[in-house]
Amino acid sequence: MNKVPDTELVLVPGGTLITSTAEEGRALAITMARHSIHNIQPDLDVLKAGRPVYSTSPDSLIAVSEVIAIEFQTIAAANSYWRK
Amino acid sequence: MNKVPDTELVLVPGGTLITSTAEEGRALAITMARHSIHNIQPDLDVLKAGRPVYSTSPDSLIAVSEVIAIEFQTIAAANSYWRK
Amino acid sequence: MNKVPDTELVLVPGGTLITSTAEEGRALAITMARHSIHNIQPDLDVLKAGRPVYSTSPDSLIAVSEVIAIEFQTIAAANSYWRK
Amino acid sequence: MNKVPDTELVLVPGGTLITSTAEEGRALAITMARHSIHNIQPDLDVLKAGRPVYSTSPDSLIAVSEVIAIEFQTIAAANSYWRK
Amino acid sequence: MNKVPDTELVLVPGGTLITSTAEEGRALAITMARHSIHNIQPDLDVLKAGRPVYSTSPDSLIAVSEVIAIEFQTIAAANSYWRK
Amino acid sequence: MNKVPDTELVLVPGGTLITSTAEEGRALAITMARHSIHNIQPDLDVLKAGRPVYSTSPDSLIAVSEVIAIEFQTIAAANSYWRK
Repeated sequence: MNKVPDTELVLVPGGTLITSTAEEGRALAITMARHSIHNIQPDLDVLKAGRPVYSTSPDSLIAVSEVIAIEFQTIAAANSYWRK
Repeated sequence: MNKVPDTELVLVPGGTLITSTAEEGRALAITMARHSIHNIQPDLDVLKAGRPVYSTSPDSLIAVSEVIAIEFQTIAAANSYWRK
Repeated sequence: MNKVPDTELVLVPGGTLITSTAEEGRALAITMARHSIHNIQPDLDVLKAGRPVYSTSPDSLIAVSEVIAIEFQTIAAANSYWRK
Repeated sequence: MNKVPDTELVLVPGGTLITSTAEEGRALAITMARHSIHNIQPDLDVLKAGRPVYSTSPDSLIAVSEVIAIEFQTIAAANSYWRK
Repeated sequence: MNKVPDTELVLVPGGTLITSTAEEGRALAITMARHSIHNIQPDLDVLKAGRPVYSTSPDSLIAVSEVIAIEFQTIAAANSYWRK
Repeated sequence: MNKVPDTELVLVPGGTLITSTAEEGRALAITMARHSIHNIQPDLDVLKAGRPVYSTSPDSLIAVSEVIAIEFQTIAAANSYWRK
């Protein structure tokens, strides 16, 4: 198996949900969602084969955006919504 | 690749979840959901090809509305629901 | 394009999540979900063409009810659940 | 159109999310989910035609149970989880 | 109709969301999700016919696990997450 | 039936939602989601047969990642988001 690099398997990159900005929090949401999938399917070849499938399917992209929204709820709450 | 403009890739446009009104908060929810998808699929041609598919499919539109609802939960909480 | 009327595009009709009663809050949830879809697909003819599809499909109706439930979570929290 | 009775269209039956018991709260969640659907599709004949479809489909039943779970989150929070 | 036993129709078995342990809370989440479905489809023969379908379908099992996760959110909050 | 080991059926491994780190909390989310499925389908042969199906399907992987995100919401809240 052509395994994804170890850095791609870290579940919470940086080890914390706390970020300086909302933008960084949102980026973390995307990364955490992607790393979940890497942990379920760590074979890089399988992941690469799936990419052209989901990334050109509107319904798959919508589903991905839902996962990001859910992850972001958690991260935003952790950061008290980055209120000043 | 015909890439989406950089402004369409900003994850939290304006850099904050705080908005003056509920209406603006709702608009932000829609924009954030769309920009998630731009980050996953930044090829404008692919995005444009998908548009006639999902925008005429009731089930896809319902799925989009669910993502907006989830994003809005976060933004509404961030703004303490714009209570007076 | 036969565009939906402007009033059907307002994201938060009335401009507030606060309602007098739970019943009104629930009605707002339904309207907000529908107006999300109008903003994604503002062509009235396309919307009307979709109606007989989703409104006779149990799975589509269940999906709609899920979106309403999520919108209502936000509105109910905004109103502190209309507790006396 | 053979319309569902008006009582089946009330969005929040009883006009409140507050119930005496968790059991009643759960029953309210089911009723509210069903009444959402009645408001989207008030034609009793269409609803009855859909019943044998979704009620014998495991995936549809699972989807229904998800909607109930989401509605119940709101009702349970409204009732402070019926803690003694 | 070969109806499920009355005990399988109780929406909140035990009448409370409060449990001694997280393990019991999780078990309650599973039971509540199952009893939702029993209330929508109380015919034991139909339920038994569905079992081999969803229990061998990865997508159905994933959907079931999502419902359990949502139910558990409510129960865990009710129990203040069983923090010591 | 070739049943999954008892340890794979524990609903909340470790008996608590409290973890030292966000990384461990995320790992617990994955395990709890998997053990839900083991409780619904404890036949190891069926589970193993499903693995090549869902693990090579982008949509299934996205669905799994959504369940993990939901479980993690609960665990993160239980741990007050591991704020220092």
